[in-house]
Order: sequence, then structure tokens, then C-alpha cells
Amino acid sequence: MTKVIADITMSLDGFVTGPDPDLEHGLGHGGEPLHEWAFSNDPVDAAQLSTGTERSGAVIMGRRLFDIIDSPHGWNDEVGYGAREAGSPPFFVVTHAAPETRRLELDFTFVPDGVASAIEQARKAAGAKDVVIMGGGDVIGQALDAALVDELRLHLAPIVLGDGTPLFNGVGRIEMRQTDVQISPHAAHLTYELR
Amino acid sequence: MTKVIADITMSLDGFVTGPDPDLEHGLGHGGEPLHEWAFSNDPVDAAQLSTGTERSGAVIMGRRLFDIIDSPHGWNDEVGYGAREAGSPPFFVVTHAAPETRRLELDFTFVPDGVASAIEQARKAAGAKDVVIMGGGDVIGQALDAALVDELRLHLAPIVLGDGTPLFNGVGRIEMRQTDVQISPHAAHLTYELR
Repeated sequence: MTKVIADITMSLDGFVTGPDPDLEHGLGHGGEPLHEWAFSNDPVDAAQLSTGTERSGAVIMGRRLFDIIDSPHGWNDEVGYGAREAGSPPFFVVTHAAPETRRLELDFTFVPDGVASAIEQARKAAGAKDVVIMGGGDVIGQALDAALVDELRLHLAPIVLGDGTPLFNGVGRIEMRQTDVQISPHAAHLTYELR
Repeated sequence: MTKVIADITMSLDGFVTGPDPDLEHGLGHGGEPLHEWAFSNDPVDAAQLSTGTERSGAVIMGRRLFDIIDSPHGWNDEVGYGAREAGSPPFFVVTHAAPETRRLELDFTFVPDGVASAIEQARKAAGAKDVVIMGGGDVIGQALDAALVDELRLHLAPIVLGDGTPLFNGVGRIEMRQTDVQISPHAAHLTYELR
């Protein structure tokens, strides 16, 4: 059965980017240590990436994240969602208005009416696979707060950033069940089932 | 060599208590799931507690935490720091003024001139053992921000509280090395060495 999975990297103090993220600094200024695990050669980290992409039948993201990955500094044949895999899932971008042009030649759908609608469309596209919300913090926060997430996959990086984009900004109380923890030297990969 | 260890339980959204903590609700209202691990029968959780108390030659806490544990709902022969062990370490309480009376008959020193002074006094008392800062969030945050902590032991509970006492409030950037992770069904016990 299709699960809706929120999958994101967070600092110990709850930030998913450092301060002042922009197109050239998608992780904010000084936020690079967040993704150290994603570029490591550790087999546990690599398995986290490949399991994530293998399970995803459709991917949801916010507009700011789309702008970053579509920018000249963004995704390419080597870096990106399943860049080295054959094929890629359809992407659903939560945005008020679709961009007039874009660089990446991937299957993007721009969804103007919110994250719930994006999840509904992504479910249809995902078939038997899962829907993965890959960020940013805002979109995942909205989905969590609306109780639309079945599983939270949190990659906890060993850094306190002090400032940046918070993940749980305005999110209310949510009880979870810790279902899996995988450890590399670069992160604790924590999986929670939402009750 | 004596290490200064900050040891505290935190929710996924960075709170060490739920909202409105008071003497009767030390963990705030609805914050009880934070300490589910500390009252579990899981051997991993039990080892976390006993290792923590065995290593501590002196313990530091803030005044609000002292008031809670000294209140009628606080520590007793069954519940408290090493309650079931023989003896207990000396405690150093960071506070502007010592309380006029107290209930608990333990070795308390009240330190009026801040957390750095408390750590200095606790080091002398700890001998070859470690100094453990057990909270609250404020005192640990101050010690982290002043770079007085060697090791952070974070017990991450599987809950988003939405509100409460933040741990990293006003703490600046700190790079860490993840040195140990122990897992029970109730928490991820994360140990970080501060660089």
C-alpha cells in the first residue's frame, strides 16, 4: 500500500538549511555539513539514498526547492534524485504559479492548490510505490500538521546550526513510533511511523 | 580525565519539556512521553541510566530543575538521580540565591555566579569522574554556547511536542562528531563529542 513518506535531513537544533538559503546556496550559508552523509562512501548512507529512491513512485517538493534544483547549480546527471538510476519518478511541485521556463527535462507537475492536492495527485501517479515528500521544511511541516504523513524519515546530522529554516515551525503535537534507526559516522537515520 | 557531559532528553522538535512546566508537572503539560525510556524495562534504556550515574562524580542543574526535584512531587528513594545506587554525587545548583529551606537531604551547593563557576567547582568535586549537566535546557544551552561542554548525550524521544522549553534557544553554531548511538523502542540515545 502506498505510504506518504516525509524524508529530510535536519540539524540537532531542528533546521533543514543554514541561514539565508538562495539558489547558489540551497542548504543556506554553512549548511553543507547537513548533507555530508549523502556524499559519503559509507554503505549505510548509500543504502539510505538508494532505498529512498527505489521506494518512491512520486516525489513532492516546494517551489523554493524546485527553483534550487532547477538552477544552474542544481541537479545534473551526477547529482539529483536518483541521478545515477535508470529513470526518475514524476515530481509534483507545490507552488502558486508554474515557472515560465525551466532547465531540467524531468516530469514536473506544478500544483497550485496546496500540499493536500499534491499528495492526492502523487498517490495516483505512484501506483504501488510510495509518495515521498522531499522538502523543503515548509511543505513537510504543512503535511505533518495536516496529518497527511504516514512515515517520517529524519536524517539527523551531527551539527547545531544556530539559525536557518526550521522543520517543525508551527507544527502541533504528534506522537510517533520509532520503527528503525540506521547509523553511519555522518548521521543517525531515524524512521518514525506516525500514530 | 574529567569530561563535562550535558545529558538530557529532547523531543524531535527540540523541546526538553512540554508547555507550562511547574512543580507538579516538571516535564510540562503532556511532556511525559519524553521520559518513557527512563521508566522502561528495556535493557538499553536501563544501561543508559546506570552508565550515566556511574560516570558522574558531580552533577550540575539549574534552579528551576532543583525546585522541581525538591518539591513534594520530586525525587524520593525510588525516583531520582541514582536513587537505587549506594550514595549520590554532590550537586551544584546554578541560582541567583540559595533557597531558605529544602526537603532533600543530599549534598547541594548553590552557585550564584553562573554555569562556568558551577562547572569549575564541580570539576574539583568530581575527582577522576565526570561532571554531568542534567538540565534544564537553559543551563545546558548556556554551557554549550560558552563552549564548556565536551560531550552531549541526547536522548531523542519519538514525539513532536509543538511547544515547551527549547534546548538550543540562542545557541550558536556547534560542529560535533557522532560517537555513539544506542537504540531502544522508546528513544535514540545519541552521543556527540564537541569539536
